[in-house]
Amino acid sequence: MKHSTRMAAAFALLTLMPAAARPAEPTPAEKAVHYRQGVMSAIGWNFGPMAGMVKKNIPFDGAEFARRAERVAFLATLPEEGFTPNTKDVKSHAKAELWANQEDFKARMKTLQKRTAKLAKVAKDGDLAADTDAFLKVADTCKGCHDKYEQE
Amino acid sequence: MKHSTRMAAAFALLTLMPAAARPAEPTPAEKAVHYRQGVMSAIGWNFGPMAGMVKKNIPFDGAEFARRAERVAFLATLPEEGFTPNTKDVKSHAKAELWANQEDFKARMKTLQKRTAKLAKVAKDGDLAADTDAFLKVADTCKGCHDKYEQE
Repeated sequence: MKHSTRMAAAFALLTLMPAAARPAEPTPAEKAVHYRQGVMSAIGWNFGPMAGMVKKNIPFDGAEFARRAERVAFLATLPEEGFTPNTKDVKSHAKAELWANQEDFKARMKTLQKRTAKLAKVAKDGDLAADTDAFLKVADTCKGCHDKYEQE
Repeated sequence: MKHSTRMAAAFALLTLMPAAARPAEPTPAEKAVHYRQGVMSAIGWNFGPMAGMVKKNIPFDGAEFARRAERVAFLATLPEEGFTPNTKDVKSHAKAELWANQEDFKARMKTLQKRTAKLAKVAKDGDLAADTDAFLKVADTCKGCHDKYEQE
């Protein structure tokens, strides 16, 4: 296929993405909200089985725990970019306090990133007691921020 | 805080996550659809600025391109897990063909993972021509799969 044809085909695609954001063409602010919610959902999805292991609801699998911990650590670096001031008036779970306390919010995001990175590192050793401790520090961080800045 | 108290607090949180999945408690299959859509949305979000640079709509920034390429490569490893057979009957953008062609679909996912990994690697050199070539191979892969397995 000619370069220009491939180019055209490739860019035709871009108007189709992200699929989950359709049917109506969202505004840039709506896209940002959608993005951060998508990332949060992906964090929750991966956090779930780790919680199951820590709670002993499912058998501990160190490799699986480590795989998900690595994902969570990576994903934790992503959502902040979606909390832009232009999203303030988009319907979402963010409380007004979030916009009034940007320094605190950003510090909490940094803490989350540090603690998830630590969890991913600790998880490589496959020790449930150490994993549990690092996991609970992450869970505390999540809860602190959700309690303060998230509304139903 | 006592370990057991922190434990309780931490697990209370888990019932709150993922925030984007509320208000109604979704079924496991709905959660899987939500997860994969969230990841796809995050891929699209990061792919957008890369496309802008390749299309020369925005100035080329090699470091920024590389940062997003690395994200896309990581994110590309995630969605497959959300395409479980129990999601077949959940409302989504997946065509019935996707479930009838699992081998092809999985092969396409593998290709996506290889090509996004290549793109992330190439992007480290900060060369727009090489980036463009690797980017278009990824975009072709996206488009091929969306065309075949996605409905409006």
